[in-house]
Amino acid sequence: MSDARYDFASDNTAPAAPEAMAALVAANAGFASGYGTDHVTAEAGDLVRGLLDADAEVRFVASGTAANAISLAALCRPFESVLAHEHAHVCTDETGAPGYFGQGLGLIRLPGASGRIEGAALAEALAQPDVSYRQSPAALSLTNATEYGTVYSAAALQALTAPAKAKGYGVHLDGARLANAAAAGFDLKAIKGLGVDILVIGGTKAGMPPTEAVAIFDRDLARRFDARLKQAGQLPSKGRFYAAPFIGMLQDGAFVRHAAHANAMAAKLAGLMPFPVKHAVEANGLFVEMDEPTLKRLHASGWFAYRFLDGTVRFMCSWATTPEAVESLGETLRTLV
Amino acid sequence: MSDARYDFASDNTAPAAPEAMAALVAANAGFASGYGTDHVTAEAGDLVRGLLDADAEVRFVASGTAANAISLAALCRPFESVLAHEHAHVCTDETGAPGYFGQGLGLIRLPGASGRIEGAALAEALAQPDVSYRQSPAALSLTNATEYGTVYSAAALQALTAPAKAKGYGVHLDGARLANAAAAGFDLKAIKGLGVDILVIGGTKAGMPPTEAVAIFDRDLARRFDARLKQAGQLPSKGRFYAAPFIGMLQDGAFVRHAAHANAMAAKLAGLMPFPVKHAVEANGLFVEMDEPTLKRLHASGWFAYRFLDGTVRFMCSWATTPEAVESLGETLRTLV
Amino acid sequence: MSDARYDFASDNTAPAAPEAMAALVAANAGFASGYGTDHVTAEAGDLVRGLLDADAEVRFVASGTAANAISLAALCRPFESVLAHEHAHVCTDETGAPGYFGQGLGLIRLPGASGRIEGAALAEALAQPDVSYRQSPAALSLTNATEYGTVYSAAALQALTAPAKAKGYGVHLDGARLANAAAAGFDLKAIKGLGVDILVIGGTKAGMPPTEAVAIFDRDLARRFDARLKQAGQLPSKGRFYAAPFIGMLQDGAFVRHAAHANAMAAKLAGLMPFPVKHAVEANGLFVEMDEPTLKRLHASGWFAYRFLDGTVRFMCSWATTPEAVESLGETLRTLV
Amino acid sequence: MSDARYDFASDNTAPAAPEAMAALVAANAGFASGYGTDHVTAEAGDLVRGLLDADAEVRFVASGTAANAISLAALCRPFESVLAHEHAHVCTDETGAPGYFGQGLGLIRLPGASGRIEGAALAEALAQPDVSYRQSPAALSLTNATEYGTVYSAAALQALTAPAKAKGYGVHLDGARLANAAAAGFDLKAIKGLGVDILVIGGTKAGMPPTEAVAIFDRDLARRFDARLKQAGQLPSKGRFYAAPFIGMLQDGAFVRHAAHANAMAAKLAGLMPFPVKHAVEANGLFVEMDEPTLKRLHASGWFAYRFLDGTVRFMCSWATTPEAVESLGETLRTLV
Repeated sequence: MSDARYDFASDNTAPAAPEAMAALVAANAGFASGYGTDHVTAEAGDLVRGLLDADAEVRFVASGTAANAISLAALCRPFESVLAHEHAHVCTDETGAPGYFGQGLGLIRLPGASGRIEGAALAEALAQPDVSYRQSPAALSLTNATEYGTVYSAAALQALTAPAKAKGYGVHLDGARLANAAAAGFDLKAIKGLGVDILVIGGTKAGMPPTEAVAIFDRDLARRFDARLKQAGQLPSKGRFYAAPFIGMLQDGAFVRHAAHANAMAAKLAGLMPFPVKHAVEANGLFVEMDEPTLKRLHASGWFAYRFLDGTVRFMCSWATTPEAVESLGETLRTLV
Repeated sequence: MSDARYDFASDNTAPAAPEAMAALVAANAGFASGYGTDHVTAEAGDLVRGLLDADAEVRFVASGTAANAISLAALCRPFESVLAHEHAHVCTDETGAPGYFGQGLGLIRLPGASGRIEGAALAEALAQPDVSYRQSPAALSLTNATEYGTVYSAAALQALTAPAKAKGYGVHLDGARLANAAAAGFDLKAIKGLGVDILVIGGTKAGMPPTEAVAIFDRDLARRFDARLKQAGQLPSKGRFYAAPFIGMLQDGAFVRHAAHANAMAAKLAGLMPFPVKHAVEANGLFVEMDEPTLKRLHASGWFAYRFLDGTVRFMCSWATTPEAVESLGETLRTLV
Repeated sequence: MSDARYDFASDNTAPAAPEAMAALVAANAGFASGYGTDHVTAEAGDLVRGLLDADAEVRFVASGTAANAISLAALCRPFESVLAHEHAHVCTDETGAPGYFGQGLGLIRLPGASGRIEGAALAEALAQPDVSYRQSPAALSLTNATEYGTVYSAAALQALTAPAKAKGYGVHLDGARLANAAAAGFDLKAIKGLGVDILVIGGTKAGMPPTEAVAIFDRDLARRFDARLKQAGQLPSKGRFYAAPFIGMLQDGAFVRHAAHANAMAAKLAGLMPFPVKHAVEANGLFVEMDEPTLKRLHASGWFAYRFLDGTVRFMCSWATTPEAVESLGETLRTLV
Repeated sequence: MSDARYDFASDNTAPAAPEAMAALVAANAGFASGYGTDHVTAEAGDLVRGLLDADAEVRFVASGTAANAISLAALCRPFESVLAHEHAHVCTDETGAPGYFGQGLGLIRLPGASGRIEGAALAEALAQPDVSYRQSPAALSLTNATEYGTVYSAAALQALTAPAKAKGYGVHLDGARLANAAAAGFDLKAIKGLGVDILVIGGTKAGMPPTEAVAIFDRDLARRFDARLKQAGQLPSKGRFYAAPFIGMLQDGAFVRHAAHANAMAAKLAGLMPFPVKHAVEANGLFVEMDEPTLKRLHASGWFAYRFLDGTVRFMCSWATTPEAVESLGETLRTLV
């Protein structure tokens, strides 16, 4: 019994896409060696390298929260900090996982409109002198597409990574919605030139069963990474179950194609939206101004949506969102105005 | 392209069983709320409670290593220790995960034949006075079936848990191969009476896609457990993918039935084994004495097996191991004597 | 060669008071057992219990930062948070020590005028529902005297601790300047009735060589506390060196008497201050509005003072600050207006 | 009231030597800037660099346990291990501090007679392949003088550090009793050529009030070390109290001279010892075979000594141990044979 109320609640409420499931089922044949040494994982790694046009180390893990936290712990010691947007997932929605995996590493929360870090705020943070009583920054964490459904261009990312790299800091890119960014025009093959040391590519929100790919551009970081993952509970014994969905989604372009559909559904919903839309709709999310009684009436009418960090109400679309569902939601919304 | 060489290398080299996969595919329909609040997770939780005949809190997570480490961190503070068999998985094969999740919590390694903790050794450890310069014990970790393919009876477990509980210590049961123990006669419904605070029920080695169930008998421990899991990267957004396999395997008894098959295959292999068998074959593993040149020849002949911690060579059977494979391996082994 | 420039820079720039040094020298005779089991430590513990009129467990440690962090780690698990004033020392000046000692435990920063937590802000934080993706609070940390030289009354503290205790949360009191609070009228014997679980009594800022007393009111917390301290590097082998200064300062009232002098020097400086004073001068600190060029001229004139978190310039007085130094500073300040 | 029973119980039961106390009292004059930026700390750092004839970064901290643990955490990530003698202080007497400060970093315990690591055991450990399920080594920890009162020569240390450095691993030297090693002929100026990255120089056991010097030979390690120390509660605000004793002890050679006395007292006790002495008496400790009833009678006769890890009974001498005390203990011991 599925629950259509949650269609727009998040992009992780959708089922897995048929391409991902078919690959999962296909990979489930015969015996395979463990802990990511299998042929399925090897093939999926090649596909990820192809997607990025980069000779990165690739791993497949179960959790985006863990992937982010492990990445930050790899870039930043406990007495140092990560620079991130104040509403980045690592700052607000991961129960302090970066500090847990990184034994108290700090997060320096930077402002910026619509989920993008403001360049001046980053510059100011980078200009702070090292003092012993504060956790000075050692890494920059970026998110594309952002938490507010906006998309950084490669140039916009470069403008943020360059000053961080100039200080010798590491760069992490949270790509939980990288497919949506790609579908919006962000060039994935440009990432390798941006100074990103470690990239998390979202599988789950892109329409896969739980899986995330970690691409490590900095080969020094990759040393003993399997031990790092194993200790952190993220080196799956049956690795093929995390790799296979990426094969299904990458081998014929479903990864970006499904994301393009999700983005289109968000755009369609924007067209039907009777409430003020707050951020540019560039990916698969839509954020609108709606008071609390109205939100409650929306919930009562059978559609769930969350109030987000900036006070707007968030609607997320996925590969599985249908035009009919968007229209149905749109109709309901019009009754609430 | 599967790799039959790994059939006996571990019980995690097998594919997932059809019952588990069918349930996974079935659960992949429509939308569902996230983070374990969905209907699939609820149903699977009920089935686990039924299996145990206990009103425990149940969670489904991706990793057995993480499940164990999180459990131990819940029972033991950093300046305390866990009592465990010296060859327990938590001591030898998890890259120090308990200490990572538990910020340096200690492991006190106890001896005991064939993977079972020796009562006298436990008693001696429990009798040690608290001193400030050592990590005194706060929890006991047990494994059933053991790492050496032997099985504790409920009474044998009780003999170990009782003195630990008398000291006020917590008890963790690593059930990575609990299905095999059950198939060997261990009564799962007895666990609730043994003083176990937290139990990890292996899905992966039982023939599922990656998933483990955590059953929390001590309700105080369960407080804020979802936050604990989320911070540790083990609260899956698409929870149904971890819950569904348990539905498939528990609803009609496949969980224990498949384990019984695996155990039977190990017994069959024991009957064909030309090398000395070192531990009683009570579950799905077989440990034999074999010198290094012979092991190398075995590998060259197309069968992979690991040399284990006690120096024996380990053969593991799974739900997917066929009688034909056992016979084929047996024939090869006879040529190596 | 001492450096008088730093007289007002902090209350830790002063030498140790003669009473403390005399006791240290006196304690340095003959042999003594280690790790806090010595007779000096026992005597000092009794004096602290007398000061508080409470049957608390008492330990003496080297570092206030460590004492605070260990206390918070004792009250709060990694997936939980501590509620504290946004400018509390634990939030701003300890390089993330609470998160390091507590493996990522969170800090929820509360506002409030002049360093005192605003009751409404606390109430709002306490009213938040537990959600798995955030670190819910488990403890409240208070500071008396506050970072801004103001002093909570027992009633004011009670108004904050009561709602926290009603939720079952722990309470930590950072008393780095407890002596100054006492000298300002705060009743130390009232602490035991306020629901404080663990109290850090500052020795260093009160005019001792490095030492802090930790008073544990909640006896459950005290279990294995020596092991906790030892693991954290805060169970000194030569414990008498940390205990003795408290004997010297407590046995005849020098602890509060010296603090009263420091408070009086701050009041005297307030009387001479030509710049606007921002917070009530209730203890030994004075915070004034001063622009950056003026501050630079002050530094050039031979007096060091820090710009503080709220933008004011902070002047701290200690037991060693003389009326002459205050007058000399006052004269210099008048030339800068 | 001192407690002469503890004279031989440890080398931390003694009071501080007059040279150290005089320097402490002398340093306690006037104001000084905080957190190790003061003139006393600068002077003491120079003296340590002179002692070592090396341009190392030097810090003064309160705790040897913390100094060791912080050093190991600086050399080794959580999923890696430190190679150490199985009876090294970091392995047996620090309540798991390395794992606490280093979030679960592992300790690989190596055997070796009389506290010295056996070269073959080290070679075997270094030859192990990296595997993801174990914490592979990243650092070697050595202790001089050893826990058993023996002393490594520079050549003997070199034989151990060279293969570790060849693998790219870090080296930590625990010099809690470095003064005793120096007095026994170990050339402190040779350390800089041995590949040691970080050295802890014991002040406490050498006859100072609580203080340890940390010498960082690898300048990369020194980056942000003050923040590392501050977060770990080991950057004292009143730094001069930890630096001054080193001035008193180093400026005229009391550091080694007092240690030579302690060593001589151990040698004298060896000459009077009626029980079998187990390890070569090269520094200030003596380890003898004594059964439990005899030890109890010794305790009853007014002398305390601990049974050590290898089952022997340990007698430690310090700068404060007098020939008369040795003779008195010798007489008592003769009555117990």
